[in-house]
Amino acid sequence: MSDKKRRIFLSEKEIPTAWYNIVPDMVNKPMPILNPGTKQPLKPEDLFPIFAEEVSRQELNQTDSWFEIPEPVRDQYKKYRSTPLVRATELEKALDTPAHIYFKNESVSPVGSHKLNSALAQAYYCKEQGITNITTETGAGQWGAALSYASKAFGLDLAVYMVRISYEQKPYRRSIMQTFGAQVIASPSMSTKAGRKVLTDTPNHSGSLGIAISEAIELALQTPNCKYTLGSVLNHVALHQTVIGLEAEKQMEIAGEYPDIIIGCFGGGSNFSGIAYPFMRHTLKKGKKTRFIAAEPSSCPKLTRGIFQYDFGDEAGYTPLLPMYTLGHNFAPANIHAGGLRYHGAGTIVSQLKKDGFLEAVDIPQLESFRAGTLFAQTEGIIPAPESCHAIASAIREANQAKEEGVQKTILFNLSGHGLIDMTAYDLFNQGNLVDYDLPEAVIRRSIDELEHII
Amino acid sequence: MSDKKRRIFLSEKEIPTAWYNIVPDMVNKPMPILNPGTKQPLKPEDLFPIFAEEVSRQELNQTDSWFEIPEPVRDQYKKYRSTPLVRATELEKALDTPAHIYFKNESVSPVGSHKLNSALAQAYYCKEQGITNITTETGAGQWGAALSYASKAFGLDLAVYMVRISYEQKPYRRSIMQTFGAQVIASPSMSTKAGRKVLTDTPNHSGSLGIAISEAIELALQTPNCKYTLGSVLNHVALHQTVIGLEAEKQMEIAGEYPDIIIGCFGGGSNFSGIAYPFMRHTLKKGKKTRFIAAEPSSCPKLTRGIFQYDFGDEAGYTPLLPMYTLGHNFAPANIHAGGLRYHGAGTIVSQLKKDGFLEAVDIPQLESFRAGTLFAQTEGIIPAPESCHAIASAIREANQAKEEGVQKTILFNLSGHGLIDMTAYDLFNQGNLVDYDLPEAVIRRSIDELEHII
Repeated sequence: MSDKKRRIFLSEKEIPTAWYNIVPDMVNKPMPILNPGTKQPLKPEDLFPIFAEEVSRQELNQTDSWFEIPEPVRDQYKKYRSTPLVRATELEKALDTPAHIYFKNESVSPVGSHKLNSALAQAYYCKEQGITNITTETGAGQWGAALSYASKAFGLDLAVYMVRISYEQKPYRRSIMQTFGAQVIASPSMSTKAGRKVLTDTPNHSGSLGIAISEAIELALQTPNCKYTLGSVLNHVALHQTVIGLEAEKQMEIAGEYPDIIIGCFGGGSNFSGIAYPFMRHTLKKGKKTRFIAAEPSSCPKLTRGIFQYDFGDEAGYTPLLPMYTLGHNFAPANIHAGGLRYHGAGTIVSQLKKDGFLEAVDIPQLESFRAGTLFAQTEGIIPAPESCHAIASAIREANQAKEEGVQKTILFNLSGHGLIDMTAYDLFNQGNLVDYDLPEAVIRRSIDELEHII
Repeated sequence: MSDKKRRIFLSEKEIPTAWYNIVPDMVNKPMPILNPGTKQPLKPEDLFPIFAEEVSRQELNQTDSWFEIPEPVRDQYKKYRSTPLVRATELEKALDTPAHIYFKNESVSPVGSHKLNSALAQAYYCKEQGITNITTETGAGQWGAALSYASKAFGLDLAVYMVRISYEQKPYRRSIMQTFGAQVIASPSMSTKAGRKVLTDTPNHSGSLGIAISEAIELALQTPNCKYTLGSVLNHVALHQTVIGLEAEKQMEIAGEYPDIIIGCFGGGSNFSGIAYPFMRHTLKKGKKTRFIAAEPSSCPKLTRGIFQYDFGDEAGYTPLLPMYTLGHNFAPANIHAGGLRYHGAGTIVSQLKKDGFLEAVDIPQLESFRAGTLFAQTEGIIPAPESCHAIASAIREANQAKEEGVQKTILFNLSGHGLIDMTAYDLFNQGNLVDYDLPEAVIRRSIDELEHII
């Protein structure tokens, strides 16, 4: 142990200078994103009313493998990147496994998660274009916190629609956003048509990511010089997150190993894509044999039990139509504590890759995820975010499997964030008051059946 | 900016292998710690009933300048050390100051503060000696969280007496301790004589550090194979914390600068001592001109308004008599949100150094500290602990002074912890609901007058 480095950093010079776009290397490109009215494929210009121009171009680019990271974004990255690659030696010992377990520790970012990687990029591109105001939504608050800091860093005014149940249950995340200077509105709210409609139908509605997205888009469209930003699902978000995997690639090289298995928890796909794609390019281009595992909650199993189909990204249907694995945009996931994974669909790229067999998905029950997270905390000293607990649980499954088979596997997972602001959930778990949720097939079927009219 | 490194790390090989004991280099040694009964100076053996033997020896050692850091402690340090030295370029810009501001970022430790540096050492020495159980107290919970992880790492059972008001107001920190496997008891409690006495007199007493210390010592004395541990004030705690300054010394060298001013917030003195002593040795040995500033809250101003005098470290008078700057062990500080700074006394070494003019102290009002913390968050991206806000406020005062004088000063402060679990306080501040407390001289006088019978 003492002769091997516990944590591997990169020097500032080694921090990636470009993000990796996997699309040019894909066997089958993702199907086009469609205008819901005309059902015609979108061009970048069609996205300009909602998104910054540069991210709109990135979103639909199928030819450029690399996008240079702008200098001001790289300067901000240097505040917390490279993040360490850590060998989880104590966890290995506790599991008595022959597997080598590494994790990429994105929790050391100032706001505690990987979300800042894309927040800084999106805020920068808006600023660059002369935009003054941006909007977004946030569930558990990780994305909102990241974007709040990024907006302050680049001098933008930010309005965040925060899912009401989180707004009430996670006041710390709300305060973090406010401390960074953002305006935070509980969603559904009376400030938008979409929100008013929901509140009229259901006055005490506790909100959902889908509704919050609708509200944020609506406000962006009605505010002068304002754009909308999104923290996951979309291709440009995954693109920005590849800085994680590109760093990890160099760091694994320093460690002298190449991962057999790469794992990320899965909500819309941004942290999974971020850690996976840079390694997957060697699978696509050189036939490198690596297993990629997306770990989703069993109560929101879009990859393991959803359908591949065109669907909206939001509740009200303001977004374009996305070809994706989905549970239906009206699917209401159980109120699990991994709020960042409570989303009905998967990004278009990751959906295509799943369809083509380049990645596996596993669904993790809530209790198993917290048992895994607690073991990780007690061995490695870091309390993981409830979302990240799913990746840890999957890694533990694989390490146990390696033990059973008596083979040495190298496992790499992404620790997307810490859980210091999610202690309410650990509290309930410690007291035996957390439960697993049953999700009958009929419920999924009903939600998916509602999609049929879309396309 | 791009040509200068934002964050400086040390390689694992450069992490200090020994802690620095400042006592041999002091002009006047600290006065002896006394047995309260006999008024005789204590020998290490006198401390053995309460503390681990090795820390008892460290506590009273006046001859050895260096203590080797045991290998298992260094292995644990490697999980988060070196912590980065960061140039606060954005804060400098916001202040428009010619000063160079650096901070040592101890907030990246897994539990979010510098406290882990001593927690790991103390847990290790107990384990090494064959101890199975330890006790401690915690105010805001930073120390308790650190020791909870350290106890788990070295296989000890831990009981934490947590000041009741924090137990109720900071449930997240309690959950963190419980997640690491510690037993947490709200203090005052009915589990000790000291606690029962307080509760009999004042049934709804909200607790204090002094009472919690009494309870933790009492439980340790009455439990087989059990020792007590303390997170600040004592010499051996300051010793362990010097790893901060020893790293910073090497890192400042890499940065190519030597600090003119070194700042730490001040509760009992552990983080201040940790950053200051390694640099102060060059003042003591080579006459190097450096200003050392202890930043304490104006509502608990032991260094700026207290008296140098023998006093107890706890409420019930279980501890030895310590020669220190104190407000009196019955002093009840206002309920400010920097819970870690609400302690009546200063360590014996730091008290002597203050008496001999080697350090300055400033008192910072609560509102100024949160204004400073918010500016720091909005520029550097890290929300600081309310305790650390005091160091930041002092650094900002000095940076503004440098601007006024038009001189380039190099300022180094210790960012002892992050404030992600203290957002309730920021919330109140953001809403304009925090106040400054007036502390009339008569209140201090009354509390100090009660001391006269002690020695």
